[in-house]
Amino acid sequence: MARNTQVAADHNAPPITRVLAEFVANHPSRGWSDAVDHEAHRTFLNWLGCAVGAAKHEAVEAALAAVQELQPAPQATLLGRTDKVDMASAAMLNGISSHTFDFDDTHLKTIIHPAGPVASALLALAEHTGASGRELLDALVLGIDVACRLGNTVYPDHYDRGWHITGTTGMFGAAAGCARLLGLDAERTQMALGIAASQPVGLREQFGTMTKPFHPGGAARAGLMSALMAKHGYTASPKAIEAPRGWAQVVSTKHAWNEVTDELGERFEISFNSYKPFACGIVIHPSIDACVQLRERGIAPGQVERIELKVHSLVLELTGKKEPADGLQGKFSVYHGCAAGLIFGRAAEEEFADDIVTRADVVALRRKVIATVDDSIDEASADVTAVLADGRREHVFVEHAIGSMQRPMSNADLERKFHGLSDAILGASRSEELLKACWSLGEAPDVRSLTALAQP
Amino acid sequence: MARNTQVAADHNAPPITRVLAEFVANHPSRGWSDAVDHEAHRTFLNWLGCAVGAAKHEAVEAALAAVQELQPAPQATLLGRTDKVDMASAAMLNGISSHTFDFDDTHLKTIIHPAGPVASALLALAEHTGASGRELLDALVLGIDVACRLGNTVYPDHYDRGWHITGTTGMFGAAAGCARLLGLDAERTQMALGIAASQPVGLREQFGTMTKPFHPGGAARAGLMSALMAKHGYTASPKAIEAPRGWAQVVSTKHAWNEVTDELGERFEISFNSYKPFACGIVIHPSIDACVQLRERGIAPGQVERIELKVHSLVLELTGKKEPADGLQGKFSVYHGCAAGLIFGRAAEEEFADDIVTRADVVALRRKVIATVDDSIDEASADVTAVLADGRREHVFVEHAIGSMQRPMSNADLERKFHGLSDAILGASRSEELLKACWSLGEAPDVRSLTALAQP
Repeated sequence: MARNTQVAADHNAPPITRVLAEFVANHPSRGWSDAVDHEAHRTFLNWLGCAVGAAKHEAVEAALAAVQELQPAPQATLLGRTDKVDMASAAMLNGISSHTFDFDDTHLKTIIHPAGPVASALLALAEHTGASGRELLDALVLGIDVACRLGNTVYPDHYDRGWHITGTTGMFGAAAGCARLLGLDAERTQMALGIAASQPVGLREQFGTMTKPFHPGGAARAGLMSALMAKHGYTASPKAIEAPRGWAQVVSTKHAWNEVTDELGERFEISFNSYKPFACGIVIHPSIDACVQLRERGIAPGQVERIELKVHSLVLELTGKKEPADGLQGKFSVYHGCAAGLIFGRAAEEEFADDIVTRADVVALRRKVIATVDDSIDEASADVTAVLADGRREHVFVEHAIGSMQRPMSNADLERKFHGLSDAILGASRSEELLKACWSLGEAPDVRSLTALAQP
Repeated sequence: MARNTQVAADHNAPPITRVLAEFVANHPSRGWSDAVDHEAHRTFLNWLGCAVGAAKHEAVEAALAAVQELQPAPQATLLGRTDKVDMASAAMLNGISSHTFDFDDTHLKTIIHPAGPVASALLALAEHTGASGRELLDALVLGIDVACRLGNTVYPDHYDRGWHITGTTGMFGAAAGCARLLGLDAERTQMALGIAASQPVGLREQFGTMTKPFHPGGAARAGLMSALMAKHGYTASPKAIEAPRGWAQVVSTKHAWNEVTDELGERFEISFNSYKPFACGIVIHPSIDACVQLRERGIAPGQVERIELKVHSLVLELTGKKEPADGLQGKFSVYHGCAAGLIFGRAAEEEFADDIVTRADVVALRRKVIATVDDSIDEASADVTAVLADGRREHVFVEHAIGSMQRPMSNADLERKFHGLSDAILGASRSEELLKACWSLGEAPDVRSLTALAQP
């Protein structure tokens, strides 16, 4: 039975498992610019709001019911809930809730949502051990760097072949961050990364089901447990990532090893993290943004005769649903997105509720949107003209939508988004306290002062 | 950004996730021959002995120490130990111990070790719920059928590209068996398989480290949790296994869908399970067997000038370690295997102890083994010639090793093996009681009568 027993092996990979382990174990605390540290606070805050906002979603309820069959010890908080569970289950459940609304952060170079797996593991562990906010932030920056650099190494091939890259790189980020929080040395950190390498979580086939948000949750849990096992002497291959049969070579035909090593410790991938202003797929964002701008110019829905929308063909291919029947379909309708932008000036999770997507005035306005394809327009842009009843034409061209790297959400934008997610769960005043605790996380002697605020 | 966003997609796969779910949910209890049912008892007994035997191995100690950080509830027994932990952790830890000695069962068509992920999940769940022995055996036969049929579907490509197939199909077997034990209907069983599809556990790169036995353990845990989540309404893609971006198409270029559907419910893959006489990877067995036969012909190590070994390339690829430094590495050294066979006439766990692998006479003899690749020899065979100091050549060709389907271990062989593993942990008389409980498992009203015997 002669057969090819090795596919596309590269026997000359640099020792990146080791390189990353030394980096994670030895990089100095806060060994980066103020801008990087500020971005870590923004990433954490945005992630926390998303997790709190989805705390009572049916996906979280179902996963929690399964976890409760294990009679878990009350070690760590479920964000937005009164329940506590063991720290590994908390990592999983907070990972699920943070990704449930598809509203979390995005590392645009790889489409990884890095905070889901990394922050979920770290906060659960930090709460149980009583770590400081600074220790948590250090681990967050380093963990996200590991996950995203490995994502850069294999993207896009890895993603294209069907892996949901958030959960299939996220366990490395979670393992790295937890190893840092636990104070593991480079050898044990290397083992933690090695154990994690055997546990990628996620197929793109699951998009549209509860298993999609399970991916960051599962990766958070896997990474945390990998670090705990390594702490106690569990071993793995020291080149589990780069070996001919290591993770990178098994899950991808692209292996740009330099993505791990280039400017390591100087450039931090968290700098390239972005936050969604709108709770839907990124290609609709420029169109929504344009309609929000029209509203800000004083244009009311009643004045509008029609909205002329010119976009790249990909926009209509992915989000061309003309008559969405419910909230989920609304997320795939640029027509609904435009209507929401003009009527509400926003498109957060509430604007994709079933009863909003089917509300008479919203339906009437979305039917006035005339979309045409223009491939000279970039897929990250939109050209929108409101034609008013009095004949006036108001034109907006959005080159880069709000939330992109070019036009990042401001801190005030992030705070508004946070309140939009959290107020219904925790109340406005508690949400404001929690926001403040996020902004001052770096000074918190014990993260439990923050997790206490995240419970209703 | 034009790029190929799908690799090798087959859009015409039959709905095998659904087919397997209906089979698992609806097949009648004990709906198979006496021979199949007897093999299920043999599989269970062999698995249990392996798990008990390795109960105090450092890999189990390290993993347990990590689990204890979660302060688990005492729901299920760790085989061979007094500790109890939550059922998901027990599934993981018993999965680790059962595979630690590389001494467990093998489905030779795929090199899957099916009991590790499946029985480990089932016994932990059954103990917690108080299921009967018959319910456990039903779930075992069906769970192993699911794992091995999916293995048949993707083997060998899936394995060749670097996946450790035991843990990357095992989560399906564990999910299926646990769904059966929980009494889930076909719809929820389908979701359990779907959730499991996102969680393959295992890279071959980990061979030789503690993360190898973690693979069946991690798969056992993932499968059990997938079933519990599905029980509570968690959702996944209904075609998570066969879709163009489903498990089979993401992890393999071979997809022989008929391996799932052919004779489903008539032929049971557990019939093709085998048990190891030697505590190491199956590809070394023919070589060890040959050397044991040379010893039985009266050849002593002192007479040997060299041992000429001809084997398939896979044998050296998997077990070509020339200078193993410890017992674990010895398991991946066909050179050590040959030396052990000729010196001791056996190769159980003791012959892979650190002090045996490094003993001077053992080292001296293994250095006399000259291995050459001959791909005209099947990977299940070995051609061995001892060249003696007096010039004589003694030749043995082993077509099928002891323990293979063609030369299966007898019940008495299995009982001897069980005692060899269990007596040191539980004592001979308790081990004998436990053996009897295994043989009469089908009549046990509650599996807790058996798990009580598996504690020292």
